[in-house]
Amino acid sequence: MALAVTGTVGIDTVYTPDGDHREHVLGGSCTYFAAAANFYGPVRIVGAVGDDFPDDLRSTFDRFNNIDTAGLETRKGSKTFRWGGKYQENMDHRDTLFTELNVLAEAPPPVPESYRDSTMVFLANTHPAVQLDMLSRFPDRKLAVADTMDLWINTERETLTQLVKQIDGLVLNYDEAEQLTGMKNTVAAARELVSWGPAFVVVKKGEHGCIFAHRDGIAALPAFPAERVIDPTGAGDTFAGGMFGHLCRATDAGALTNLTDFDVLRRALAHGTVMASFTIEDFSLDRLATLTQEDIDRRYDEFARMMHL
Amino acid sequence: MALAVTGTVGIDTVYTPDGDHREHVLGGSCTYFAAAANFYGPVRIVGAVGDDFPDDLRSTFDRFNNIDTAGLETRKGSKTFRWGGKYQENMDHRDTLFTELNVLAEAPPPVPESYRDSTMVFLANTHPAVQLDMLSRFPDRKLAVADTMDLWINTERETLTQLVKQIDGLVLNYDEAEQLTGMKNTVAAARELVSWGPAFVVVKKGEHGCIFAHRDGIAALPAFPAERVIDPTGAGDTFAGGMFGHLCRATDAGALTNLTDFDVLRRALAHGTVMASFTIEDFSLDRLATLTQEDIDRRYDEFARMMHL
Repeated sequence: MALAVTGTVGIDTVYTPDGDHREHVLGGSCTYFAAAANFYGPVRIVGAVGDDFPDDLRSTFDRFNNIDTAGLETRKGSKTFRWGGKYQENMDHRDTLFTELNVLAEAPPPVPESYRDSTMVFLANTHPAVQLDMLSRFPDRKLAVADTMDLWINTERETLTQLVKQIDGLVLNYDEAEQLTGMKNTVAAARELVSWGPAFVVVKKGEHGCIFAHRDGIAALPAFPAERVIDPTGAGDTFAGGMFGHLCRATDAGALTNLTDFDVLRRALAHGTVMASFTIEDFSLDRLATLTQEDIDRRYDEFARMMHL
Repeated sequence: MALAVTGTVGIDTVYTPDGDHREHVLGGSCTYFAAAANFYGPVRIVGAVGDDFPDDLRSTFDRFNNIDTAGLETRKGSKTFRWGGKYQENMDHRDTLFTELNVLAEAPPPVPESYRDSTMVFLANTHPAVQLDMLSRFPDRKLAVADTMDLWINTERETLTQLVKQIDGLVLNYDEAEQLTGMKNTVAAARELVSWGPAFVVVKKGEHGCIFAHRDGIAALPAFPAERVIDPTGAGDTFAGGMFGHLCRATDAGALTNLTDFDVLRRALAHGTVMASFTIEDFSLDRLATLTQEDIDRRYDEFARMMHL
């Protein structure tokens, strides 16, 4: 299995409620996803940055052994995507301070020829038309999952609906699931979205875990109980990265044959939960950059034990 | 093991966001707890109603085979506690329309001599001074757990703190845990409360399940994913009822020796989760009154399977 992720690579500025902050740190959906998936095996990224992208941020990718950056285009004369946000006191909501789309507002990056044989594709959040286009670049895909956001639900509902019909799984936040379906109940909204076409839908609820709706059933997973949350940025993308990483590694190990099996995906979501629980422990990729396989295995075991009745 | 619950028996009026409502239905913390625990074995209630308490509500207790109402005092010249509430659209918050304390504002009910040998006691929400007094009426107790609410945290913090030091477990809502400890993070708040004395603390999060902090560890449980919520009233008390019911039954069956063991309590919380998931499916005790052991077993198995990694 070869795993690819398409999405954003950006420069973040993050303020936390206790007054701490970080300026110009590495961010973006692609980045977080890849950093998490990297612990399970090779991951290919497709994204674009401007020629202002600083070397010290670029070198962060090298701290992760398994990230293939052949698909990270550096576009001359363009500027890198920048985002700034401030978390509210409960850490569950954030205010966007600024969004400079820059290179994201231009044509999407090309997908390298070397990526064409990718069998697992995660389309991190971006314009659904770009996601549809990206989808077509991976003719050998066996699993395609997309994330989205409120902006596209408001402005590009038709294209988004088209996308949802062509993918195996959709990942989105609880308020977005409500917005997309008009249903207040998260479980009902998730089930409704499954009826639109995909084999499964994962509704993310931050500190409250996720709801997993699947053709063959429904499940709920708690988040790993975290006593100290420093920066939740990227938690959702590392969640998806851990999920895909596990699916990819388990398939390669011959441990599973059906990527969209209910129980297989449930276990993958637990891996996603564990990876997200590390991300929030520090700013940007700081915690993931120092993470060991032993850390991950220990927390996964703890989570599984916690869940076992 | 003999199980007793002290708390309220009242008359509720409930409005749901879809415009439906029920007037003058059976409610109260004692009532809901007992109705849930009843499916696991005998349960004794301590509460008081006025002489206005209607026969049709009283007869509801007879629909549950295992509820001992010897401790339900009918006080002459007094009026029954009445509560009215309206749920907001997300079903997670409710507005109180009216509260008529009536008999609750008078002296607490006596505990019958026949209840003195009770070994498991749940002190459902009421004035913490009354809870402390009730606690002393059960000299043979092996497990005592209390619930509380924001009102007592605001007005009776010292007495409440005294109570928390004398019980084995505390059950409260997430916003109350925050209010009592001043900590925004639910996990940190739960851990802090354990440091005050009790062996464990359960922080209820409604549709998001619960956080379980224990001297020996921490765990999170999701709620059972419910697609349709009619009336969440009493969910927290049936949660506690299922939890105690399981502990009582399992002890009698010789299946457990340590009532405050981490894994034992985790399993008990799963029973609570299942019982709460039935309560919310209809108004008042309507769903619990038609529930069968088979319904409970099936849903518990489904929940355990959903959790198993």
